[in-house]
Amino acid sequence: DKVVDNYESAVNQADLIVIGVPVAAFSNVIKKISPHLKKDAIVTDVGSVKKSLIRIAEKVLPDKIDFIPGHPIAGTEKSGPQSGFKGLFKNGYCILTPSSKIKKESLRVVIKMWNLVGMKVDTMEADYHDMVLAITSHIPHIIAYSIVGTVSNLEKSIKKEVIKYAASGFKDFTRIAASDPVMWRDILLLNKKSILNMLSIFKKDLAKLEQAIKEEDSKFLYNLFSKTRL
Amino acid sequence: DKVVDNYESAVNQADLIVIGVPVAAFSNVIKKISPHLKKDAIVTDVGSVKKSLIRIAEKVLPDKIDFIPGHPIAGTEKSGPQSGFKGLFKNGYCILTPSSKIKKESLRVVIKMWNLVGMKVDTMEADYHDMVLAITSHIPHIIAYSIVGTVSNLEKSIKKEVIKYAASGFKDFTRIAASDPVMWRDILLLNKKSILNMLSIFKKDLAKLEQAIKEEDSKFLYNLFSKTRL
Repeated sequence: DKVVDNYESAVNQADLIVIGVPVAAFSNVIKKISPHLKKDAIVTDVGSVKKSLIRIAEKVLPDKIDFIPGHPIAGTEKSGPQSGFKGLFKNGYCILTPSSKIKKESLRVVIKMWNLVGMKVDTMEADYHDMVLAITSHIPHIIAYSIVGTVSNLEKSIKKEVIKYAASGFKDFTRIAASDPVMWRDILLLNKKSILNMLSIFKKDLAKLEQAIKEEDSKFLYNLFSKTRL
Repeated sequence: DKVVDNYESAVNQADLIVIGVPVAAFSNVIKKISPHLKKDAIVTDVGSVKKSLIRIAEKVLPDKIDFIPGHPIAGTEKSGPQSGFKGLFKNGYCILTPSSKIKKESLRVVIKMWNLVGMKVDTMEADYHDMVLAITSHIPHIIAYSIVGTVSNLEKSIKKEVIKYAASGFKDFTRIAASDPVMWRDILLLNKKSILNMLSIFKKDLAKLEQAIKEEDSKFLYNLFSKTRL
């Protein structure tokens, strides 16, 4: 809140506003800045979920303001401004999910901004973004959090061994599961529908694989493991 | 088979034999070399599962031969001799699971060998090894294969997007799931018991997490995500 208050004078002079806050803070920030925006300001954001933020922005922003929802796919398991580094955005993709109502020139400005820091820009429907990101990012985080959580419940001696021998595959999960808990709690809650959809498909597939191990169905295992080099 | 036949003359002169073959080939190889071993030869291996290989070795090897089961935890998602590189073993752990019946000197020889290529050596019970590795390596591979398999069943256009935006977490899964299908089919079948045990715990924990997302139980999510920095 303090940060937003201090920026009031900056907001009323800005042509382009980039909202870069945890997704759960988006609503509060956009409400605070909305009354101070220039008439033809362009607003964009960097949140990992799009549909639910669009719903909030549509309610809050004046009709004349163009909101261009954005999601630069960049970053590590670390968060906060201190985790930025030179080249963070270089050669990555930024996804924009603008409505058809916005001015083409506004979209061009936001694309240009991301191009200038080295990103390639794609546009798509917000729902499609949320579904694709559920698969590529949100489900992997859920699974990593879950399995590392399972390990954190094991007795201390086993936990120690697991960490010691993590090089054999587990270390990728521990790195993902070290992501910011508040950020990820909020992302999952704001992309609930897509996530639960994909999770139910994943669970069915995992159950089939489990069954194949139980029945020592080596053909099933070989076939599955052979088609996973995408 | 050809390789083993050619090595017959080498085997009958060797003081130390390291069996480095896919785990499903272990049985065949040890049967082939067994009649040709020197009386006091030491035999060790590098397989990712231990208990099932020990059972085979105990049936096949003469009583006087010391078998020191080993598992150097090193390697990438690539397999085969051409995937070795300088420093592959450096600073990694090698786990040995010897029975109490072997000569201490034999154990010392195998430890020395791994030390010479830069590995630290731990010894433990074979059952314990199989349980720890189920968690650190086998379950992560099962999950990665499963979720990448789920994606490979999606329609082509979505699959393309998922690969394109994989930087957001999914790429760790695709790398793991690009591992050798025959090798992993065999590892899973030979460590079935430990794997099914751990998988059932993991599935229960995942179901709890899914329920929390459904019910928007933000406290549960925050608490889980906060304890996963091991």
